[in-house]
Amino acid sequence: MDVIYVLDILGTFAFAISGTLVASDKKLDLFGVIIIAFVTAVGGGMLRDVLINAHPINWIGDLNYLYTIFSAVLFTFLVKSKIGYLSTTMFLFDTIGLSVFTLLGLQKGLAYDLHPLVALIMGMISAVFGGVLRDVLTNKVPLIFEKEIYASACLVGGLMYLILSHFKVAENINFIISASVVVSIRIIAVKFHLELPRIKRDLFSKYH
Amino acid sequence: MDVIYVLDILGTFAFAISGTLVASDKKLDLFGVIIIAFVTAVGGGMLRDVLINAHPINWIGDLNYLYTIFSAVLFTFLVKSKIGYLSTTMFLFDTIGLSVFTLLGLQKGLAYDLHPLVALIMGMISAVFGGVLRDVLTNKVPLIFEKEIYASACLVGGLMYLILSHFKVAENINFIISASVVVSIRIIAVKFHLELPRIKRDLFSKYH
Amino acid sequence: MDVIYVLDILGTFAFAISGTLVASDKKLDLFGVIIIAFVTAVGGGMLRDVLINAHPINWIGDLNYLYTIFSAVLFTFLVKSKIGYLSTTMFLFDTIGLSVFTLLGLQKGLAYDLHPLVALIMGMISAVFGGVLRDVLTNKVPLIFEKEIYASACLVGGLMYLILSHFKVAENINFIISASVVVSIRIIAVKFHLELPRIKRDLFSKYH
Repeated sequence: MDVIYVLDILGTFAFAISGTLVASDKKLDLFGVIIIAFVTAVGGGMLRDVLINAHPINWIGDLNYLYTIFSAVLFTFLVKSKIGYLSTTMFLFDTIGLSVFTLLGLQKGLAYDLHPLVALIMGMISAVFGGVLRDVLTNKVPLIFEKEIYASACLVGGLMYLILSHFKVAENINFIISASVVVSIRIIAVKFHLELPRIKRDLFSKYH
Repeated sequence: MDVIYVLDILGTFAFAISGTLVASDKKLDLFGVIIIAFVTAVGGGMLRDVLINAHPINWIGDLNYLYTIFSAVLFTFLVKSKIGYLSTTMFLFDTIGLSVFTLLGLQKGLAYDLHPLVALIMGMISAVFGGVLRDVLTNKVPLIFEKEIYASACLVGGLMYLILSHFKVAENINFIISASVVVSIRIIAVKFHLELPRIKRDLFSKYH
Repeated sequence: MDVIYVLDILGTFAFAISGTLVASDKKLDLFGVIIIAFVTAVGGGMLRDVLINAHPINWIGDLNYLYTIFSAVLFTFLVKSKIGYLSTTMFLFDTIGLSVFTLLGLQKGLAYDLHPLVALIMGMISAVFGGVLRDVLTNKVPLIFEKEIYASACLVGGLMYLILSHFKVAENINFIISASVVVSIRIIAVKFHLELPRIKRDLFSKYH
């Protein structure tokens, strides 16, 4: 599990950088940047823990999340002019974060005796809700709703984990395989600009 | 209570369709649509349960909410070109949902020994917060804040329920009467374009 | 502690007025105004209590918050044409609210055995999150992220409180000194238009 914890922290670091970058684009002040970095990095796990009543919630129970976020903001300040060169590294960390957050959230849901479907949703909330909060707080339509097969990667990876664990595959191996699925789908989706279908409707007016 | 459960599910269905339609208007992808349908349908009850510490929260404790939401999204996909013809039906379901959500939320608040005023607010949160979340996530000023006597219908219906239960009216009859009040006010308000008053102020600058 | 309770209520009153004014600017109807006043005034404490699992949460456990909010909306309606003359008073109440909310939130965090850093964050959430919610619900980038050393004042005052309590300064005296720090920083910041630094970045595209 130690490796997974390291990946969790790396993912937190990447998500916090993502938040820092979006907040800087919006010309927020230092506090705004830290808050956005914070919600991007731990917002998903925080919502999951509140919904399943898992107290103390993620960042209250483990201060390493906070230290990681502060480090990420500082790091982004320091290397800001060079971070363009790092975008592939960042993308990788971010994708690792996505996969690890999904599976850790899912495992936590199962550990709390939730129905597998609900546990799967908890995994997805853990992975994507931080980004949603980031976008809501910076007043954008959440990116996740418009672009990339981002949530879908989490869904498929989570399903894979549930199926393999149904067939009694050892937990660590299962984690690695399912995480690889998330990472692969994300990379393929970005590389080939894959998107999910949309529903069109122009025929009727809003009634609600 | 069986009838009320059916109405609860019908209301969930209608709210989920409402979310699906708004999300489609915003050209969200399939995942975005499902998420918006989800928060529209169960967001109000979810917030209520988190605030009053009622675990497991609504959709975690009863999977039928999730199945209803998935069905509603699928249904909207399938009939999208014809849904215009159904708008009266949808409006009716939505209004039923509004009344049932209000009263179920209120009852749950009372069951948790909350002060009637707080229970009334819980009823209103149950009924309107899903729509608020839907609008926040799709980056609009919540409709509820600008148009229709929507929340007011919940308020009056909820008050009616409290008054009748003060006079020991049988619970089922009370539910039917109070729900009818919500439905009637909503229909009358939409039909006659009633609105609440606004506060005007242009004389002073924001200080906060 | 009686004095602190009075200040808490005064702060709630000021925050609720602030919410009422922003909501009126956005031409929300009466319900929208009340909801925005409500979340502005108690949203921060509500989030804090949900995160640290402190039930009943603030406004559910003490109805005086609700009464204060209703009074503030009514008050704003009544004096709206004259409220410009009161803006200094309002600013003072608001600043008092900021300081009291910070320290009460911090104390509550410590009472729940949180790490001082987490308790400090809880103090800041109590003080600033209501305003963030207000801005998100009225579809603006939260003011707090863009202007004024608002959160910084809370941070410094909170740190002061932690340091003085480390040195065993009597709680009441500590409260007064730390609150004065928050108030002073806020006033000085507004008077001299102080701002926090921003991170610039134009060199690289968003990857997340």
